[in-house]
Amino acid sequence: MAEVSNSNKVFPVVLTGGAGTRLWPVSRKSFPKQFQPIGNATGEGAGENNATLFQNTLARVQGQGFAAPLIVTAEPFRFIVQEQMHTIGQVPHAMLVEPEGRNTAPAVLAAALHLIADHPDAVMLVLPSDHVIADVDVFQAMVAAAVPAAQTGEIVTFGVTPTRAETGYGYLELSAPVAGDNPVPLRRFVEKPDVIRAETFVHSGRHLWNAGIFLARCDTWVAAYQTHARDMIAPVQAALDGAVMDLGYARLAPTPWAGVADISVDYAIMERAENISVQPLDAAWSDLGSWDAVWRDAPQDGCNVAMVGAGAHAIDCDNTLIYHHEDGPAVVGLGLSDMVVVATGDAVLVADKDRIQDVKLAVDQLTCAGQRAADQTPRFHRPWGWYETLALGGRFQVKRIVVKPGGCLSLQSHHHRSEHWVVVEGTARVTVNDEVT
Amino acid sequence: MAEVSNSNKVFPVVLTGGAGTRLWPVSRKSFPKQFQPIGNATGEGAGENNATLFQNTLARVQGQGFAAPLIVTAEPFRFIVQEQMHTIGQVPHAMLVEPEGRNTAPAVLAAALHLIADHPDAVMLVLPSDHVIADVDVFQAMVAAAVPAAQTGEIVTFGVTPTRAETGYGYLELSAPVAGDNPVPLRRFVEKPDVIRAETFVHSGRHLWNAGIFLARCDTWVAAYQTHARDMIAPVQAALDGAVMDLGYARLAPTPWAGVADISVDYAIMERAENISVQPLDAAWSDLGSWDAVWRDAPQDGCNVAMVGAGAHAIDCDNTLIYHHEDGPAVVGLGLSDMVVVATGDAVLVADKDRIQDVKLAVDQLTCAGQRAADQTPRFHRPWGWYETLALGGRFQVKRIVVKPGGCLSLQSHHHRSEHWVVVEGTARVTVNDEVT
Repeated sequence: MAEVSNSNKVFPVVLTGGAGTRLWPVSRKSFPKQFQPIGNATGEGAGENNATLFQNTLARVQGQGFAAPLIVTAEPFRFIVQEQMHTIGQVPHAMLVEPEGRNTAPAVLAAALHLIADHPDAVMLVLPSDHVIADVDVFQAMVAAAVPAAQTGEIVTFGVTPTRAETGYGYLELSAPVAGDNPVPLRRFVEKPDVIRAETFVHSGRHLWNAGIFLARCDTWVAAYQTHARDMIAPVQAALDGAVMDLGYARLAPTPWAGVADISVDYAIMERAENISVQPLDAAWSDLGSWDAVWRDAPQDGCNVAMVGAGAHAIDCDNTLIYHHEDGPAVVGLGLSDMVVVATGDAVLVADKDRIQDVKLAVDQLTCAGQRAADQTPRFHRPWGWYETLALGGRFQVKRIVVKPGGCLSLQSHHHRSEHWVVVEGTARVTVNDEVT
Repeated sequence: MAEVSNSNKVFPVVLTGGAGTRLWPVSRKSFPKQFQPIGNATGEGAGENNATLFQNTLARVQGQGFAAPLIVTAEPFRFIVQEQMHTIGQVPHAMLVEPEGRNTAPAVLAAALHLIADHPDAVMLVLPSDHVIADVDVFQAMVAAAVPAAQTGEIVTFGVTPTRAETGYGYLELSAPVAGDNPVPLRRFVEKPDVIRAETFVHSGRHLWNAGIFLARCDTWVAAYQTHARDMIAPVQAALDGAVMDLGYARLAPTPWAGVADISVDYAIMERAENISVQPLDAAWSDLGSWDAVWRDAPQDGCNVAMVGAGAHAIDCDNTLIYHHEDGPAVVGLGLSDMVVVATGDAVLVADKDRIQDVKLAVDQLTCAGQRAADQTPRFHRPWGWYETLALGGRFQVKRIVVKPGGCLSLQSHHHRSEHWVVVEGTARVTVNDEVT
């Protein structure tokens, strides 16, 4: 985006607290899709870009026009956020940790109230952390194009030009046709349409997909909450005021936070506010909201087969996604039509593409069966790094433990346990009974 | 079977040299299906019987009427055979190791020539090691019923009562309808029929599936080879005469063996000999020749879905096999019809059931891609036990090594390698520079 003065920088607010499972088994409650390397270009350049959706989101809001990001996350993800920002050398403006998930309305408000103390007229860019926007230059240009409207007190929401008659998204109906790159006042929100209406929307020039990205000044947000969600302000402010700093995070105070309504910013504010404009966005956006979307966005062969990952193979397939995740087993599809196959190291999903909205049933079934792969990944993340179990026997366990440079494990003592540590890379400083070796 | 005098015991000859991949990824060239725990009853009693097809084959020919088995195997499988016999406490009469695979005709002849030296009129029961025969009592009774015909110089082949219009098998056409449990002279072999002929065979009372199980005296076999495959006798005899005893195996001499024709016993002998009778066999036989057969033979739910293994799950599926192998990932099928899904730790197959005869294409594709899972399992078998790689990094490797009781690894020294051994079960005697600890 164009160079702007320091005081006019846009403050990105990245929401990372969601725990969706529509991309299970890659996305799990304990390690959801925003922290996974999904949606990177594959095929020719496969494996070169291993950044996660969260990391790509951060990269999208870097540069002269942007301040450091404010991260809102949930308790279980605090180490993952830290690790993934550290890996790409990013330092947040601040990190707010929600004691429990409360949807997006309280998160946006907490960010606005946090920023307004020091930057009362700061412009906030609220972003989900689990979307793909392939064309970063266009995205940044559209953010810059929306800033003037935001500065005059509008809440600018970004609308994606529809490329198909999608019935799974909400639409933004404009008060006038799109003309150039300027924001257009919103007429109204349209709920997910049936296929006939969706067909008309594709060509209307007035209907855009609601991308869930918002640009507005902090005081614009706070004023909107005062008007439309007044009850939320006191407990969120109390949660901020009572926040405890812990390992670089601001943990919001649990007691007031527990009294905050669990509601989305769309429902609490966007569908009620009058001062909403829509910034057209044509930057190869995808919400990666289902495996169907991953299939559609991935490079495909002449039979519309998308193979993602080095271990994915297809023979005589059509309209099918074969997805090989990280250390998962090699996977071969033979004679498949309209299927989704996703293989990870501890769980495999094979689904008819028409049933891909029901992936939650698979998660539910594994949960009932007591299988850990329902919501946990094999790797456990800790402040110092992560560990995973390589082998588990009746009286032994072999773990791979990766400690970040400078990371430090606590002193521990176990009864009935004999531990052998083998350092395979780097050097370790070991403290036993005050002796350091 | 009825008690018989010692000299009249039946000598089982178990053929274990095949390396089929029609049940890939469970069956692999380096560890084919006969050595895998496939086809055991699942459902209610799942996991209780973990015996392999080879072990079940051995169990089927134990008891008063049988001598110890003669095993014919191939070079790469010698340790697996030894380990699997040891596990069930079986000691072979002898083990012949083929330097390279030569199909079944040379294997049967080698067994006959080996036995005839000490037991000229011994009755040999030749068995594949990769079939299922669920009703062992009936099988043993049918073997007993066939012995008199074998003793009079017949080659008795076992014919399975067809239960469906199978077009994938050869048929045995009898010279008279089946009557009771007595062998019936063969009229002729019928190649795999089309579906219309197969339909008539099901109800003819004269057509049985060729199970590839044979009962005949050693001297009957040798006489048949003299008549129909005379060229094979000299090199096979030379390979036996030049055999070297090695770790309890008789390794056939490679040079003469290399000159033996690569041909099946069906083609070399059975389709030419005149003295053939057919013993009806109705003992829940299956050749497990494809995943389709595994699906058919496994317990199914009301929608004809077979789930094998604790990690197999199906939601709204029909006519589908979901197969979870040993340490493989959990696998969930969602909305599948007429599919086969097989998940192992390092390879997953997802195939339309109509394409299940083309599994070889999957193996070929992984072979071309240089992926080890095409023909190797993660475990490497050695005389002392086995090992597998748990983790592999740029400069380290973690192996799980299982040493059988009394097993002994060779003394080794590696440059540029530092090894750490951790004994997690049992005790180990370690020899370093003549010192034993």
